[in-house]
Amino acid sequence: MTKGTLLFAQSGGPTAVFNSSAAGVIEEAQKQTAIERVLAARFGMDGILAENFFDATEMTPSQIETLARTPASAFGSCRFKLPACEKDESLYVKLKDIFTRHGVEIFIYNGGNDSMDTCRKIADYFAETDFPCRVVGVPKTVDNDLAETDHCPGYGSAAKYIATTIKEISLDTAVYSKGRITVCEIMGRDAGWLTAASSLSVPGAADSPDLIYIPELPFDKEKFFDDAISVYNKKKRCLVAVSEGIRDNKGRYVGAPSGSKDSFNHIQLGGVAAYLADVITTKFGIKTRAVELSLAQRAAGHLVSATDAAEARLAGRHAVRLAVQGETGKMVNYIRMSDNPYTIEMSSVDLKKVANVVRNFPLSYVNEDGTHIKSSFTDYLLPLIKGEANLPYENGLPSYFKLND
Amino acid sequence: MTKGTLLFAQSGGPTAVFNSSAAGVIEEAQKQTAIERVLAARFGMDGILAENFFDATEMTPSQIETLARTPASAFGSCRFKLPACEKDESLYVKLKDIFTRHGVEIFIYNGGNDSMDTCRKIADYFAETDFPCRVVGVPKTVDNDLAETDHCPGYGSAAKYIATTIKEISLDTAVYSKGRITVCEIMGRDAGWLTAASSLSVPGAADSPDLIYIPELPFDKEKFFDDAISVYNKKKRCLVAVSEGIRDNKGRYVGAPSGSKDSFNHIQLGGVAAYLADVITTKFGIKTRAVELSLAQRAAGHLVSATDAAEARLAGRHAVRLAVQGETGKMVNYIRMSDNPYTIEMSSVDLKKVANVVRNFPLSYVNEDGTHIKSSFTDYLLPLIKGEANLPYENGLPSYFKLND
Repeated sequence: MTKGTLLFAQSGGPTAVFNSSAAGVIEEAQKQTAIERVLAARFGMDGILAENFFDATEMTPSQIETLARTPASAFGSCRFKLPACEKDESLYVKLKDIFTRHGVEIFIYNGGNDSMDTCRKIADYFAETDFPCRVVGVPKTVDNDLAETDHCPGYGSAAKYIATTIKEISLDTAVYSKGRITVCEIMGRDAGWLTAASSLSVPGAADSPDLIYIPELPFDKEKFFDDAISVYNKKKRCLVAVSEGIRDNKGRYVGAPSGSKDSFNHIQLGGVAAYLADVITTKFGIKTRAVELSLAQRAAGHLVSATDAAEARLAGRHAVRLAVQGETGKMVNYIRMSDNPYTIEMSSVDLKKVANVVRNFPLSYVNEDGTHIKSSFTDYLLPLIKGEANLPYENGLPSYFKLND
Repeated sequence: MTKGTLLFAQSGGPTAVFNSSAAGVIEEAQKQTAIERVLAARFGMDGILAENFFDATEMTPSQIETLARTPASAFGSCRFKLPACEKDESLYVKLKDIFTRHGVEIFIYNGGNDSMDTCRKIADYFAETDFPCRVVGVPKTVDNDLAETDHCPGYGSAAKYIATTIKEISLDTAVYSKGRITVCEIMGRDAGWLTAASSLSVPGAADSPDLIYIPELPFDKEKFFDDAISVYNKKKRCLVAVSEGIRDNKGRYVGAPSGSKDSFNHIQLGGVAAYLADVITTKFGIKTRAVELSLAQRAAGHLVSATDAAEARLAGRHAVRLAVQGETGKMVNYIRMSDNPYTIEMSSVDLKKVANVVRNFPLSYVNEDGTHIKSSFTDYLLPLIKGEANLPYENGLPSYFKLND
């Protein structure tokens, strides 16, 4: 039986710096003498239960470097809902069996809200049953909605992509003397952090979006039509940023087409921009365009924030150090020490405080009318999107890591 | 009355290097002693007729540099359909009047297919009526469908953006052990050049799109469903790239929602991916996602091809030199001298040969099945997407030019 194994897994939707944290975990684990073997699960918890592992113990520094700059999830991710152990203990018992067989003494789980809940359940069960494996979570979400951390790895890069793309779309939509109402749909089921980032596209200038709507405030369709048409009549164009998760005052998603639900019982979103644009054209006869930033906003490795990438990597390293020091049931978090100069400290927080809590976008950053973001948000966001990755390109395209399988 | 004025205008949809050509025109015009004044029309032909000009005579080298790296159309563009002078001569007479009043001796028009038609009509009319103004066109289109040139300024950058983004989306869609059928919609009303660029995302590798469809071949929906589902059953995911302009064997656009037409009587497209994804989910119960690359593919200044940007700028300069040498009724074109090492020569061609001709994607580059692009296309495309712009960033975002108005 092998001892001293660190097992690492990725979980939930991808981000542009998910693999930066993976690189941090692997390089730190390789350095720690207490750790003899580094396994990465293929496809997260699914891979753990299937004992489908990639042995990263001998990954070279050059491979780790390439991994670090590759977007999405190099080892594969999952959407896995772990039942409470009071309801069904069998998976927990199976995990202990697998961990024992592979000598797993440290388990690092990298993911968002749902994953931190899984992480907490496993940590609690291991502690309660005196199973000698430490469990540490590494946060990850473009949505920036995890509690107890200044921000989440993945958010800065998505925000940088969104602000840049909205800036470029703003230039594109301004080329004709008479334009359209352009509605851009941005990710964010419950939290407006990503949509708010569009406000930064041209800090303080007139051609950031004219109107911005986040899910934290009820969306009044009639008022929206009035506001958009009023801007359009004045400027002959109007640029709108809406979160995919906007809801009316009864909590119903705006323009949700089918109401189908994903494996976490979340309603599948999308199509809000298309819906609003369609209504404006049909009802008011104004030319519109719907733009969904879609997958690129979380997958754009070519436009990561260097700050975000570096922090995500450090978060991975910090998780390993915490576990080696004997910590368990914790999530790595960022504590901001100052805005200017921007400095953060890596710390840790009880997973209990994080699991199943959504950190909403603070309404203090929203204007009185609920239609735009105040410039005070810039102080928070600007440091997070700073720095360019300067990727190596091969034949005109970014060069990324790929498992040979 | 001023003499020696060069008038420049941008026309048609924006590209990421439209303004590179503008920079080339302005810097070359400033150098030519025969040219005393450089005017840029605001909003293309609309601005000319309204005598709405920006005086670029004194633009500084630093302003021109910023202009060159800014996507979209800094001076504004138009969608202007010039009637044949046999039908209505009034606009032609008005143009001569305006040109005379402003001393315009050189007119440079930068645009795509429809704009080169306008350019030709004006050049012909001026020649027939012995009006002493030379007219030279500069090509511009992300679609790459202008005749008589190896490729068009704007195409290489859009192709680089598309290949990069499809590569990143491909990574994103591969993160779960069981994925979806993802349908990506790419610009291209009549020509498949842009959609074909998606094939380059991972040259020769398995994770470029599984299926690629261009408008030059009739689209057989039933065969598509069979092919996509067959890939899905094998790989548990399938990535499809479709051109917005795909049509069935009767020439009807696939999934065209409303059939509304633009000012050139072109049917407004969009929604093909959403339509195909929806049918697959409804009819076959397979999870899908529709992704429309939308405006970002032509506006992404942060990801231009350095080759494309440099050539677009030279094209602008070449147009001015041709006009100064007395040429008129011409369009600047690129002649490829060799693939490896890649070299082109700037030359010129009669506008008559260009106007209203669509250069289709060569079917010799398409596989027998009509579902993918052959690797031989790489030799053509690779040089066009090479080189990165290395933009200056300010506060984490690209820094672009903006007229103060």
